[in-house]
Amino acid sequence: MDFALTEEQVLMQDSLKSFALNELLPKYAHWDRTGQFPAELWPKLGEMGAFALRVPEEHGGGAYSYLDAGLTIEQIAKGDFNLCYGILNACFCGDILSRFASPALCETWLRPLAAGDIAMCVCLTEPHCGSDAASIRTCAVRDGDDYVITGEKSSVTLLMAGSAAVLFAKTDPDKGARGVSAFLVPLDGPGLSKTRYADMGARGIVRGSLFLDNVRVPATSMIGPENAGFSQVMATFDYTRALIGLMCLGAAEQTLEETVGYVKQRQAFGQPVSKNQGVSFPLAEAKARLEMLRWLCYRTLWLRDAGLPHTAEAAMCKAEGPALCADVIRDCMVLHGHYGYTQDYPVEQRYRDVLGQIIADGTPQIMKMIIARHMLGREFA
Amino acid sequence: MDFALTEEQVLMQDSLKSFALNELLPKYAHWDRTGQFPAELWPKLGEMGAFALRVPEEHGGGAYSYLDAGLTIEQIAKGDFNLCYGILNACFCGDILSRFASPALCETWLRPLAAGDIAMCVCLTEPHCGSDAASIRTCAVRDGDDYVITGEKSSVTLLMAGSAAVLFAKTDPDKGARGVSAFLVPLDGPGLSKTRYADMGARGIVRGSLFLDNVRVPATSMIGPENAGFSQVMATFDYTRALIGLMCLGAAEQTLEETVGYVKQRQAFGQPVSKNQGVSFPLAEAKARLEMLRWLCYRTLWLRDAGLPHTAEAAMCKAEGPALCADVIRDCMVLHGHYGYTQDYPVEQRYRDVLGQIIADGTPQIMKMIIARHMLGREFA
Amino acid sequence: MDFALTEEQVLMQDSLKSFALNELLPKYAHWDRTGQFPAELWPKLGEMGAFALRVPEEHGGGAYSYLDAGLTIEQIAKGDFNLCYGILNACFCGDILSRFASPALCETWLRPLAAGDIAMCVCLTEPHCGSDAASIRTCAVRDGDDYVITGEKSSVTLLMAGSAAVLFAKTDPDKGARGVSAFLVPLDGPGLSKTRYADMGARGIVRGSLFLDNVRVPATSMIGPENAGFSQVMATFDYTRALIGLMCLGAAEQTLEETVGYVKQRQAFGQPVSKNQGVSFPLAEAKARLEMLRWLCYRTLWLRDAGLPHTAEAAMCKAEGPALCADVIRDCMVLHGHYGYTQDYPVEQRYRDVLGQIIADGTPQIMKMIIARHMLGREFA
Amino acid sequence: MDFALTEEQVLMQDSLKSFALNELLPKYAHWDRTGQFPAELWPKLGEMGAFALRVPEEHGGGAYSYLDAGLTIEQIAKGDFNLCYGILNACFCGDILSRFASPALCETWLRPLAAGDIAMCVCLTEPHCGSDAASIRTCAVRDGDDYVITGEKSSVTLLMAGSAAVLFAKTDPDKGARGVSAFLVPLDGPGLSKTRYADMGARGIVRGSLFLDNVRVPATSMIGPENAGFSQVMATFDYTRALIGLMCLGAAEQTLEETVGYVKQRQAFGQPVSKNQGVSFPLAEAKARLEMLRWLCYRTLWLRDAGLPHTAEAAMCKAEGPALCADVIRDCMVLHGHYGYTQDYPVEQRYRDVLGQIIADGTPQIMKMIIARHMLGREFA
Repeated sequence: MDFALTEEQVLMQDSLKSFALNELLPKYAHWDRTGQFPAELWPKLGEMGAFALRVPEEHGGGAYSYLDAGLTIEQIAKGDFNLCYGILNACFCGDILSRFASPALCETWLRPLAAGDIAMCVCLTEPHCGSDAASIRTCAVRDGDDYVITGEKSSVTLLMAGSAAVLFAKTDPDKGARGVSAFLVPLDGPGLSKTRYADMGARGIVRGSLFLDNVRVPATSMIGPENAGFSQVMATFDYTRALIGLMCLGAAEQTLEETVGYVKQRQAFGQPVSKNQGVSFPLAEAKARLEMLRWLCYRTLWLRDAGLPHTAEAAMCKAEGPALCADVIRDCMVLHGHYGYTQDYPVEQRYRDVLGQIIADGTPQIMKMIIARHMLGREFA
Repeated sequence: MDFALTEEQVLMQDSLKSFALNELLPKYAHWDRTGQFPAELWPKLGEMGAFALRVPEEHGGGAYSYLDAGLTIEQIAKGDFNLCYGILNACFCGDILSRFASPALCETWLRPLAAGDIAMCVCLTEPHCGSDAASIRTCAVRDGDDYVITGEKSSVTLLMAGSAAVLFAKTDPDKGARGVSAFLVPLDGPGLSKTRYADMGARGIVRGSLFLDNVRVPATSMIGPENAGFSQVMATFDYTRALIGLMCLGAAEQTLEETVGYVKQRQAFGQPVSKNQGVSFPLAEAKARLEMLRWLCYRTLWLRDAGLPHTAEAAMCKAEGPALCADVIRDCMVLHGHYGYTQDYPVEQRYRDVLGQIIADGTPQIMKMIIARHMLGREFA
Repeated sequence: MDFALTEEQVLMQDSLKSFALNELLPKYAHWDRTGQFPAELWPKLGEMGAFALRVPEEHGGGAYSYLDAGLTIEQIAKGDFNLCYGILNACFCGDILSRFASPALCETWLRPLAAGDIAMCVCLTEPHCGSDAASIRTCAVRDGDDYVITGEKSSVTLLMAGSAAVLFAKTDPDKGARGVSAFLVPLDGPGLSKTRYADMGARGIVRGSLFLDNVRVPATSMIGPENAGFSQVMATFDYTRALIGLMCLGAAEQTLEETVGYVKQRQAFGQPVSKNQGVSFPLAEAKARLEMLRWLCYRTLWLRDAGLPHTAEAAMCKAEGPALCADVIRDCMVLHGHYGYTQDYPVEQRYRDVLGQIIADGTPQIMKMIIARHMLGREFA
Repeated sequence: MDFALTEEQVLMQDSLKSFALNELLPKYAHWDRTGQFPAELWPKLGEMGAFALRVPEEHGGGAYSYLDAGLTIEQIAKGDFNLCYGILNACFCGDILSRFASPALCETWLRPLAAGDIAMCVCLTEPHCGSDAASIRTCAVRDGDDYVITGEKSSVTLLMAGSAAVLFAKTDPDKGARGVSAFLVPLDGPGLSKTRYADMGARGIVRGSLFLDNVRVPATSMIGPENAGFSQVMATFDYTRALIGLMCLGAAEQTLEETVGYVKQRQAFGQPVSKNQGVSFPLAEAKARLEMLRWLCYRTLWLRDAGLPHTAEAAMCKAEGPALCADVIRDCMVLHGHYGYTQDYPVEQRYRDVLGQIIADGTPQIMKMIIARHMLGREFA
């Protein structure tokens, strides 16, 4: 075993961290207060390679491993947790297009995606079915050389800013999971409308619902073979759960570091409050638990890099990671005393932001079902 | 022992709950989104008796017990958690004035307070000393028939709307806790300025800092004897911690009830999600824990009513209550799935609002110090 | 509401506590090390009224409320947790006999039971069905004036010492829960055999399995009408769960008190270890949580005394109480350092003993099912 | 990074696991029930290399890494948790002797240690100072070519079976930590006496106290330079905390595996109990948390192998690992229902055994102090 990063990875990590703290953190609150999309940062993230992680070199991407993607998202999260949704979407779209779509489709969309010229969305969830993707109702009907798509997609991250979406629809409505296909759908055509969500956090990266009313896309927009969409999702979502774990970890680590600084200078009863074990012990526990989470996530990505099964491990990252990081951030918020509850420090925003990842992409309950089936066998869990 | 409410208390509880759900809950989100102070509700709460709980009958109050105060705040919190800050302040000011101030001061301030015509603040904390009240620096210097007060008070709830404050200042700066006196300070005179905090929650009930620059008040504004302020605070704060426990409890109970409704109608994998023990068990645990909290809080108020010591019990309410209720609400938020993170349901706001009470009026760490001293003796803890 | 004990109850509590600490605690370890049944203590407990709590006065019992039973078991547990199994059994048998059995049966069994002359058992569980009492297989077949009983009963507390059992058997095997009847079965007749369990704790109060091979009892041994046994159990078990909560509470309180004494005198790094918040804070948390548990349990018994529904509340006592008390005791064990792991202090034995009550009489899972059904309705949980 | 074991390591792991399950597990309960030292297993463990992990090849050891030691202890713990105390002691003694002692001392003691011909003890703790090693009182006074040692050593694992001890004593009593030296003390000479502890678990591997009354050892028995003992301890103890984490992990993993088997075959309410999320979710959570612990421990050992600092990481393994594993085992015990509390299944013994490692070698409190100092700096924590 070898737990060392390569020299290149260390350099990458350092430059990402310094970018995050210097370029992103100062405006982190701004996007929250205004609800504005951080458009100006997109090309900068593109330059840093943050959107190219899962884009092949021939389409403008880089030679990154899945582990590199994890290291990247962790550092970016220290500056602006919400930008990581852009990275997640870029990884998902990069992976699914490069593995299943035609070269033409890839070239059209992946190059600008990698450069940070556009943002892309993933449209899977529908209002009536959160985690039960097999029962989606949006339909894509073949009509000559086109497909005509109608339905409603909910909880679409980056929807208001996205140029295109990887969208899942039933091409064979009678078939459940085996009747789902994936399409590349530009988000500016006729028949599309959007509503914007008012969320607790992640306010600049607005979630929304997409309504499709007889939206026509060429048949060449289909990603991979007909009715193969569900297994494509399943294969892609797994590792993104480790990325989610690491984006939460980055936010929690940064908060912990800030809190260490705070409790060392804050005085009470004639000494730094850090001198109280009631203050220092929660910090120590946080440190230990984050460290445990880190290595689970890294290893999960390594499994993916090595082509080994990692569905259960990825579910573990998601089942435990966001909740653990949220707890750490909450404890840190309390350690800031009265100030922790204000917007003077980033901690309250980070808490609101991180909470969303407990729910997104499958609640802890769904994750535990996956782990339990892995342990017990599907017929026993 | 008798755990039954009187018939009158049951009636009061019912009418408060129906008032809370019908009059308060519909606008609960409004004050959050706008940051506006809910001025229109103040006289209504006054009519319901919510501000008269600790005001003597001769000054326009009612014949309420401390337990009645608890029952009231719990029900009001079901409709609008933040209004309970008004109740807390009214209880604190009612108690401290009626016990220590001159009849004239009482009549001037308590009657409009009880009626909901004015709001009052408590000014204790200062920026450099959160929970260490003995080391405040605001000074009140005797000058003829007046006191001249200078200093800064932080974390003052209701500051932007308050007409007057019970304010603590050093009258003998060399003496620590034994040099603190309490004053009634109108908030509209010369020498006063205010800044408004941007908080995570409790947005309508704005917290702020009060700056006093040679503010002159007549010596008759002093509450009780000189240098007795600290012990007055100590005697009054205790039971308010049980009220805080109950306001959090009310918010958590209401959230639990809403969540029970949600998970019964929400379908996944062909059945109500409530059929999953992964959903129903957290609800059951929440119910059990809230029930335990309730009786600790009620009993603490009963101890106060009976004139028995209750410092440690009150600290227990505050040490465990807000954090427990916050956890319950967070679990409920997650059980709402994607929707829990939006402002479509009250749950995310309630979570933000309740979190503030973990910190306010002494962090869990301070509370545990109080309990530990009670158990171990001051020289051992 | 009134949270005060009567003067009589306070006296009873005091004398029970002093009995527990002086007469029971000194031999608490003895019964554990030897596995011997504490026969010599039975009549003493009888004298203290501990077995008479649910026996009517006309059969040698006392005028005790359910709350009195709770107060008693809590104090006895401070001296010897395991003796409380005797109290539990006496309460169960006292209640079921006095409510449903013939006066003759009552007189024969309840008088010696109350006096501590005999111990009685409850035989419900069978090896194949822990908490699923409706599917028991032991059969009682009518034969002239007798019933003939055959089957196996498992997890019978006090089996090795018991003179008789309240035993549940199918009198109509086709009917599930509605085919169960209760019998009074003396444990010394022909056709009976026993095996003894080797348990982690509660070693003197040995659990065991009872095998019945055509055991003949007169038809007058039936308790209540035929096929009514299941509802009798259901009605009786509820409140015993609050007793279990209180017996665990007593053990935890006593441990906490001992630990407070220990950490005050134990020195490390030049001061009492209690001076470390890492030591005093867990004690403070323990105190607060036990206090919450206490009032839930007392109130549940009060509900029973008042003839009000209390099934959900009783399940809450059992779902949370034993596990919470076990956690407190474990933390106390750790605070004893190296010595906590030895048998020099009672803490390790108390931990082993209390753990059994997490499982007995329905696991936390079963309790949460009961609470969830109460909250959600049977068709949704 | 590379999370893969080498082929050799996989083979080693497999053969150790099969040895543990086939040779050790069948007698695991036996040593507990009898309190007998498992002498017959010592040479077998020697043959498997389990005592040679930190012994240099020239003295009969093998070319093992620290990570290898971790892999070994984890597998052995699946069969018999308590034998791992032998491994821990052999690692500690192997390390400290091979790094600091004379070649002659090494050859005399390390060869039989590695072979499993003898067991060795570590004598550091004294009754008055659990974790405060600098204040030990045992004294070693130079007398000609000898040292004469007097004092009391407590909590000595394997004491009753050990042939020799690495013992720490003050050679300069005025100097605190800088006055401590290490000695190799055979345990059969004059002036030595022992008492045996009655512990909650780890019963075959008896702990005890060692009394030294003018015990004379040749000056050549000193390990390393005079007064260097404390830093030797500090340098050696660190990584053993990761070994402790892994021995607990092995025990928890094995318990989890057994429990999965149990809940799949156990029926209730007409289906395997594993079908209930109330059963399967705790198993899933356990799996995820153990997986996190594993990688923290492996990485800590890798840091040691790489010669990198790992004090804080080792403290994290110890602060969180044993308590986490104990919680997992307790949940598993409860999932066994009534049977979990008996000695019919290994789970209750494993629970008792693992609990000891929460306390041994520094309580969680001590570990959190170490982590906090690392985070905050010694002057702030």
